[in-house]
Amino acid sequence: MPKQRQFGTIPNNPVGTRFKDRAELSAAGVHRPTQAGISGGKTEGADSIVLNRGYIDDEDYGDYIVYTGHGGQNTSGIQIAAQKLTDSGNWALKLSFEQELPVRVIRGPKGDPKWSPPEGYRYDGLYKVVRHPWPERGRKGFIVWRYRLERIDQSASIEPADVIESAKGPVERRHGTTDRQIRDSGKAQKLKEEYDFTCQICCTRLDSPSGPIAEAAHIKPLGRPVDGPDTKNNMLCLCPNCHKLIDRFGLLIDDSYRVFKQPDGEDLGKLTLNDRHRVSQEYLGWHRERCALAQANG
Amino acid sequence: MPKQRQFGTIPNNPVGTRFKDRAELSAAGVHRPTQAGISGGKTEGADSIVLNRGYIDDEDYGDYIVYTGHGGQNTSGIQIAAQKLTDSGNWALKLSFEQELPVRVIRGPKGDPKWSPPEGYRYDGLYKVVRHPWPERGRKGFIVWRYRLERIDQSASIEPADVIESAKGPVERRHGTTDRQIRDSGKAQKLKEEYDFTCQICCTRLDSPSGPIAEAAHIKPLGRPVDGPDTKNNMLCLCPNCHKLIDRFGLLIDDSYRVFKQPDGEDLGKLTLNDRHRVSQEYLGWHRERCALAQANG
Repeated sequence: MPKQRQFGTIPNNPVGTRFKDRAELSAAGVHRPTQAGISGGKTEGADSIVLNRGYIDDEDYGDYIVYTGHGGQNTSGIQIAAQKLTDSGNWALKLSFEQELPVRVIRGPKGDPKWSPPEGYRYDGLYKVVRHPWPERGRKGFIVWRYRLERIDQSASIEPADVIESAKGPVERRHGTTDRQIRDSGKAQKLKEEYDFTCQICCTRLDSPSGPIAEAAHIKPLGRPVDGPDTKNNMLCLCPNCHKLIDRFGLLIDDSYRVFKQPDGEDLGKLTLNDRHRVSQEYLGWHRERCALAQANG
Repeated sequence: MPKQRQFGTIPNNPVGTRFKDRAELSAAGVHRPTQAGISGGKTEGADSIVLNRGYIDDEDYGDYIVYTGHGGQNTSGIQIAAQKLTDSGNWALKLSFEQELPVRVIRGPKGDPKWSPPEGYRYDGLYKVVRHPWPERGRKGFIVWRYRLERIDQSASIEPADVIESAKGPVERRHGTTDRQIRDSGKAQKLKEEYDFTCQICCTRLDSPSGPIAEAAHIKPLGRPVDGPDTKNNMLCLCPNCHKLIDRFGLLIDDSYRVFKQPDGEDLGKLTLNDRHRVSQEYLGWHRERCALAQANG
């Protein structure tokens, strides 16, 4: 009987633990599969990933990672077809986002030299998938699914290779992941007030004893690599349901601000817009393109 | 002009920094007010709190805290009236939950001896308010608002006072906050499938190119001090909107499973329930009582 999938830290394997090869990594239970980059089940979520330049579209920034899903490669590792979100590892990593599961990250010798060990594999701590995966045309022209992961484990710093080389003692952490997530909550609050906490898409206004509930959604997400701005023309005041749908490309807004359900295409009518709120066609365009790609490659 | 509120770590004040008194703490910008336990604005959220036994209902478990809102005390610090969620500090800490803002936690000499410095004040890192505040009848019989905060800053461990006393070198962290949040996602997934991802309250089924969206909501929340169980009889399959409303006591479910909006009392009809799903009256009862208290003390 297979062992139950283990999420979170594996006892006796603290951040920085080194492994000779994939077999040793697997035996320790830090990343069970000996080949696949994503360890995960389609119903359970993903518990670990290996960053070892399996996909040229991966981007590594240390404390956060833009990871590429799997699939669509030939046996030489060249991208020759689109990736599907429904492929097991891709789906597992999507579940990790939805269920906020911690994902162990292991770096291998072929990863970005700035952050990777020169040989063998290194466990670099727990990360979280912080937004719904989005489709992108990869460097080889085929659709890849991308995931943004951020480090949540601060039990020990990870530092660029050159800093590790030159450091004599423990290096002081420059900034925590926890400090980076701050948005302009004042701007969001003002937008919600402008619309009296009413959803610009479905006109729902949720009330509760502790006040009305609405959310400020970013059309083009913040943070690298997408880098949408934290500005009013990239924001909508939405109910939690429509917010989730927008983030998952389940609602498309056309250039006349008409909203359509995805995948069935049902016309939901026009976005409510007040005179002081100009929503940028550029950001809506980015989102529309992702809606089309998501629908074709779900 | 007052300085802008600073969220997150204050430069040059790492975890463990000690302060002689509240004046020094304030001057460093770690906790600005010299008297109030909550530093926060009603539109910006709370950036820091001090734990110093200002309220007898506070509970300190090191990595997580059950904090009591402010208000309702006489000049001798005795609770003589109910607290209101709309009081500025209480509201600010509610916003910190909604906007997922990091909150600096400082412990003072009168706090729980297990976790508090014997004298002066100590900065203990960043925490997050992990659930909507809930009302409770406090030890003095009056309603207090309670907040559960969990530590998200693992840049350095915090350890019980006796361990700090006896430790020779750095103490190894026993478990990270990140490991504790894992629920039985299989159970939640199964419940959602049983209801075909359709909300048991409003019958909404949200679809998207990456699959249907539903959430498993716990009626009585998990974790201390409420300690609701992670079992099917304490769960509902809900859309994100109804989930948020249940968590904020904006929907009440009576003993015949009829759902009523709060505060206006509108009858929304009966909960959808299949034959295999017995929702516990005990947990619904806990929730109903909180709905009534929330309505009376919002």
